[in-house]
Amino acid sequence: MKIGKVIGNVWATRKEESLRGLKLMVVQPVGADEAGERASFVAVDCVSAGIGETVLVTLGSSARKALANPESPVDAAIVGIIDGCDEA
Amino acid sequence: MKIGKVIGNVWATRKEESLRGLKLMVVQPVGADEAGERASFVAVDCVSAGIGETVLVTLGSSARKALANPESPVDAAIVGIIDGCDEA
Amino acid sequence: MKIGKVIGNVWATRKEESLRGLKLMVVQPVGADEAGERASFVAVDCVSAGIGETVLVTLGSSARKALANPESPVDAAIVGIIDGCDEA
Amino acid sequence: MKIGKVIGNVWATRKEESLRGLKLMVVQPVGADEAGERASFVAVDCVSAGIGETVLVTLGSSARKALANPESPVDAAIVGIIDGCDEA
Amino acid sequence: MKIGKVIGNVWATRKEESLRGLKLMVVQPVGADEAGERASFVAVDCVSAGIGETVLVTLGSSARKALANPESPVDAAIVGIIDGCDEA
Repeated sequence: MKIGKVIGNVWATRKEESLRGLKLMVVQPVGADEAGERASFVAVDCVSAGIGETVLVTLGSSARKALANPESPVDAAIVGIIDGCDEA
Repeated sequence: MKIGKVIGNVWATRKEESLRGLKLMVVQPVGADEAGERASFVAVDCVSAGIGETVLVTLGSSARKALANPESPVDAAIVGIIDGCDEA
Repeated sequence: MKIGKVIGNVWATRKEESLRGLKLMVVQPVGADEAGERASFVAVDCVSAGIGETVLVTLGSSARKALANPESPVDAAIVGIIDGCDEA
Repeated sequence: MKIGKVIGNVWATRKEESLRGLKLMVVQPVGADEAGERASFVAVDCVSAGIGETVLVTLGSSARKALANPESPVDAAIVGIIDGCDEA
Repeated sequence: MKIGKVIGNVWATRKEESLRGLKLMVVQPVGADEAGERASFVAVDCVSAGIGETVLVTLGSSARKALANPESPVDAAIVGIIDGCDEA
């Protein structure tokens, strides 16, 4: 999973039916000091995250396991809000 | 999911049967200021997107969940047209 | 999906049984002007592509949906031969 | 699979129900001397790894196969503790 | 699929039960002259590859299709030993 920071929201009136009602947030990976890993992406919020919070994001088909409807076309889901992290 | 800009269409007369009738569009990732994340790719349009529009794209096997035939060999689908995005 | 150019063939006498009879071609991503996205890879040809042709490639588990035997250990398949592409 | 070094733990009180009870560790890829491959990530520990240990990590949907509940939204799992590695 | 060179073996006494008996080899991608694509990784050997051999590697969930137990937490498998490759 990725650690990221929620930096915004995204709105899309015209979208896939199964995405309706899902909160789409823009996440910036944290600690990715290297090229290619810093690009922000959009994730479905599953834990009521707020802008500025540090979150845990699951990517790929596993992200769908966090959704009420696992048949939605989703490849990223916010699955936790990080309280702390002790890196040696 | 990725935020991208639709920059073109692609035609392929000789193609997998299950891709027939699907609109194939070229998408350039947006906000990917880093190397490796800017490469354009092809996605199936599921929301009648037009060239120049900013779109939401689902990647990987989850993309197939947006298709009428989820057994098609597709790894990217345009699933929303972005109205707005408030990045803090 | 990726747009790529077929640049060669690959032979492997000792290989997984379910790969027998599949044509393995070397593909170079096109338009990936960025580092990390230009590395060539091997894809199973599903549309009788030839060397030098510009092709549409599906990656990941979705690639298996293009195969007669979707249980083969394949993560890339050539699913179309590109006639044209109008990038704005 | 990736070889990585465990460099920390992560806590998230507010998280997906199915992640409860899982030990979340921060892993830094080893030997990834190239940009884009060094970004640390979070993996579920399945073999009682400790901080500082060199571990084997499975990524993507395959990671869920290491979990008691394979329906959890997990995309990385520590599946081995590396004793040795003889690189020619 | 990736073309890679087998550069070593990996041992892990403490590991996931379903990985027991599988030969874990370190593979270095070949031809990946770009950053981010050269990082070595670990793959399960399915065709009795030896150190120094050039091999064909399947990545992601498709790798599991090469295993006797497709429920093992594996994301990379050596599925062929390359005899030849004619790049135009």
